[in-house]
Amino acid sequence: MTQTIKVEPRSHPYTVKIIFQGLRHLETHISRVWSKRQIVIITDEHVGPLYAQQACAHLSAAGYPTKVLTIPAGEQSKSWSQLEKVVNQLAAWHLSRTDGIIALGGGVVGDLAGFAASIYLRGIAVIQVPTSLLAQVDSSVGGKTAIDLPTGKNLVGTFYQPDFVLIDPAVLQTLPQRLLAEGYGEILKCAIMAGSDFWNLTAHIQSCTALLQAAPQLISASVSFKAAVVTADETETQQRQLLNLGHTVGHAVEIAAAGRLFHGEAVAIGLYQLTRLFEKKQLTPNGTSTLLAQRLQALGLPLADPALGTPAFYQALQHDKKLKQQQLTLIYLKKIGHPAFYELPLAEAMTWFKHELPQRSH
Amino acid sequence: MTQTIKVEPRSHPYTVKIIFQGLRHLETHISRVWSKRQIVIITDEHVGPLYAQQACAHLSAAGYPTKVLTIPAGEQSKSWSQLEKVVNQLAAWHLSRTDGIIALGGGVVGDLAGFAASIYLRGIAVIQVPTSLLAQVDSSVGGKTAIDLPTGKNLVGTFYQPDFVLIDPAVLQTLPQRLLAEGYGEILKCAIMAGSDFWNLTAHIQSCTALLQAAPQLISASVSFKAAVVTADETETQQRQLLNLGHTVGHAVEIAAAGRLFHGEAVAIGLYQLTRLFEKKQLTPNGTSTLLAQRLQALGLPLADPALGTPAFYQALQHDKKLKQQQLTLIYLKKIGHPAFYELPLAEAMTWFKHELPQRSH
Repeated sequence: MTQTIKVEPRSHPYTVKIIFQGLRHLETHISRVWSKRQIVIITDEHVGPLYAQQACAHLSAAGYPTKVLTIPAGEQSKSWSQLEKVVNQLAAWHLSRTDGIIALGGGVVGDLAGFAASIYLRGIAVIQVPTSLLAQVDSSVGGKTAIDLPTGKNLVGTFYQPDFVLIDPAVLQTLPQRLLAEGYGEILKCAIMAGSDFWNLTAHIQSCTALLQAAPQLISASVSFKAAVVTADETETQQRQLLNLGHTVGHAVEIAAAGRLFHGEAVAIGLYQLTRLFEKKQLTPNGTSTLLAQRLQALGLPLADPALGTPAFYQALQHDKKLKQQQLTLIYLKKIGHPAFYELPLAEAMTWFKHELPQRSH
Repeated sequence: MTQTIKVEPRSHPYTVKIIFQGLRHLETHISRVWSKRQIVIITDEHVGPLYAQQACAHLSAAGYPTKVLTIPAGEQSKSWSQLEKVVNQLAAWHLSRTDGIIALGGGVVGDLAGFAASIYLRGIAVIQVPTSLLAQVDSSVGGKTAIDLPTGKNLVGTFYQPDFVLIDPAVLQTLPQRLLAEGYGEILKCAIMAGSDFWNLTAHIQSCTALLQAAPQLISASVSFKAAVVTADETETQQRQLLNLGHTVGHAVEIAAAGRLFHGEAVAIGLYQLTRLFEKKQLTPNGTSTLLAQRLQALGLPLADPALGTPAFYQALQHDKKLKQQQLTLIYLKKIGHPAFYELPLAEAMTWFKHELPQRSH
């Protein structure tokens, strides 16, 4: 079964396909998008051994001379030094403007390979083949690429759309439960903003097994929601900020937790805490945070963390890259299915949070 | 006297203004484009002492809190390490998405600062204030940004349009003659493709004094020509390749000369040699290269160089980033004012050049 979703940002429209076991015949799907060319598959040490050699062999046999470039797994690969290594390797292989890159892996591979593709020769074609649930529902669609700076995550990057995104839900079956759950955090973020059928679908996800069974529909619904937002606002001037629901608090708690929390877990905490706060402010209907909490906890996602309310948490909030002239834009729910913007000065937000969140001295 | 030229690429339209002594009141011109915000002026050790402190003081007084970031002068600043330093400094100063960067300097500053602006927080606003003739007529307009790799110049970068370009021809008066002449190489490239009034104007440029006197018109004509091309084709898929007239041979001889030739000098050699070769092929009218030679030599620009035809020259040709699947796209003149494309396999071009150019073993 193939589901096709069109993403149509002004700069570069493209298609996302969700194909169960699509990775087994990658060359078939690539050949519908790309003319014959050299390809470099960028992958990491975890995903590479599972899928890259077979993909490389199939693509080469199909007339696409293909090489594999493997980077170390983990967030530390989103660095200047790794970016430089990747780009130097592309140059050493004389990859030309009409060739292409396939990003095969999770969010780190997608972000780094997408960034490298966007700047090598001022941009060569890239196709995203995300292999984690988080990358499938979030980072592979929308064209955000990035590396980290010592002072913060994703502080350097580009908006650069792929030519195509191939999502194979079959690869999820080998993922550890914690990685599945973190992807589900982003799915719930989309579901609560989309409301109706999508939100109702998540009521039935009470286990990892249920999540895996419903994965094609959940991915499709999440990508469709994201596609509509990205089509309306590619570079996050307004509408796209909706996708930051839960992310302001989430990002800050993720930084304060110093690696202990996965991104999707931090988003889950941000989602829940912000919803709870807006409920207290009577801007979000009573009971919304309870409904959300049930769905998050069904997959073992956290609602709080000791890092919440620490000095490191508040420091991270102050350096959020989404801050615009000391104004913070939060997203809240008028009701499920109806997200809205809430702007306030950073100082006011700090006071509010300090009053409402558990306070910790370290 | 102010001349205004509109550049309208799909991604981001903007204005180029040519204002004699415009740099003296930079804040006035900036305030017509940018709302109040933090500004970082990126400049180099040569240009900074002449203009940056005054500009910084004026901008700060006008309500734009401004800082100056000075990089070493010279091509070696177009490196990963310098890019990383610049971006880290922007992060350390907490420059936000709604702040801005002014690139104040020659081509190196413009390329590096433009690149940094395009990737910091996935892109913040940039204004180009070019201070060399080459940057004024060429690199500041069109949105190409870049750094170099060990394997070649400008191999990494972005297409990223500025919000505004301010060109002050008064700053040219302090430039050494050789730097003026190299800018004139790019002007002649545009003039011979534009033909008519622009080409006729260059007949009167027989000295640096004449060049300085006619600078506002020459810059305006060059920028107008370039603006039309960039508006039609921002990312160099077709039409914009016209701007590469003379550049294929020029780039190769520049690399083979290993720093001895300035970019504009190498372009002059490429322009002349290619025109001579197409004349021999009877695709360009007889006498065109002689007319061109007179104009180039009037300002002391070279027509040939010992690096032409060396093994290093041919090696550089083979690794030209404009190569597409081993096809080379050359530009020639059907007649003055009428450029056209000439595609041929790289191997054929090599044979042709080896037959027609002086051959040297080292």
